[in-house]
Amino acid sequence: MTARGRFITLEGGEGAGKTTLSRGLATILEQAGHTVLRTREPGGSPGAEAIRELVLGRGGWDPLAEAMLMSAARREHLRKTIEPALDGGRWVISDRFADSTMAYQGDAEGVGAERCRLLTSLALGQVRPDLTLILDLPVELGAARARQRGETNRFEDKPLGFHERVRQAFLRIAADEPGRCTVIDASRPVEEVLEQARVALDRLLQAS
Amino acid sequence: MTARGRFITLEGGEGAGKTTLSRGLATILEQAGHTVLRTREPGGSPGAEAIRELVLGRGGWDPLAEAMLMSAARREHLRKTIEPALDGGRWVISDRFADSTMAYQGDAEGVGAERCRLLTSLALGQVRPDLTLILDLPVELGAARARQRGETNRFEDKPLGFHERVRQAFLRIAADEPGRCTVIDASRPVEEVLEQARVALDRLLQAS
Repeated sequence: MTARGRFITLEGGEGAGKTTLSRGLATILEQAGHTVLRTREPGGSPGAEAIRELVLGRGGWDPLAEAMLMSAARREHLRKTIEPALDGGRWVISDRFADSTMAYQGDAEGVGAERCRLLTSLALGQVRPDLTLILDLPVELGAARARQRGETNRFEDKPLGFHERVRQAFLRIAADEPGRCTVIDASRPVEEVLEQARVALDRLLQAS
Repeated sequence: MTARGRFITLEGGEGAGKTTLSRGLATILEQAGHTVLRTREPGGSPGAEAIRELVLGRGGWDPLAEAMLMSAARREHLRKTIEPALDGGRWVISDRFADSTMAYQGDAEGVGAERCRLLTSLALGQVRPDLTLILDLPVELGAARARQRGETNRFEDKPLGFHERVRQAFLRIAADEPGRCTVIDASRPVEEVLEQARVALDRLLQAS
């Protein structure tokens, strides 16, 4: 019987380098003999990608409705993509997951931690990430990187104060759940960010 | 200051005659001097209609994800359409509301009452319908009427056993909340259905 895979989530603000880190971690894991599935939120399955298009494609959502849409997409992603991969022995790396709903909708948009925790608990059932890497960097630097990358969405267009609330919310999540979360200094060069992540990953690899 | 309007919801299976009853009730209320907004779920506001299109337009949703999509649409509908109308003194008649999520996703699709109640409680906050009319009729008759009408969606296409579960779920809701819900025999001719509804409405009109 194949051992169940492990579930790693990458969290942090815009321009923090989550995509680059996801690629780097996949390489490390594959070199260690694991099969890896890289995915992202919102999205990661056909239904969830359709919800992503809807939720990012238009603005003006009621914040709680938006958190519910994100949770519906997460449920689809979990049931159709993440759980089958983990059951099949693959390691899963998701670029954003439930902590993003807590930070963006729960904190920065004012839905509140309690309502977001209820939605997350409904969407996830018993599943929780084995490891969450929180890429932390000053919001001015993240905004500059996102601009440089040339991609914008309606979250990236928000004022710096919004992004500062998101940043502080991620740091609070990390402080509340030190067993699951590791904060990474994402202002460092790519190789150093990957090295910090590798240290956190080593515990998980040794336990597998 | 304008008195707050009242909120009436119509529930029941396919082909029960909710749309016809909604029109008839609006006429009665307007003759009593009230301004009426007729609306429907899923939908009833631009964001909620976009969610409706997504959720009805494709099948294969995880049932809980579907309940979350319905709840997101409900939250939008409530905040953007229903609450402003009630605050402005209008009476609101909604063709389907939260009891439909309880009956369809909660019972017939197996999400369970507890998870649906949590979602409904999140979506509604303090708002509850003042009166819910549950249009009850044998499922074979409802299916025949829906076929005759020529409209089908992926719920109408479900087997009779599914619709029987929906019917029984609505009857249980009515039994659990007799103060809010009145069961109407929807197998009767249109005028008799309207007369049954008028009796239930009278209590609300006298209290207004």
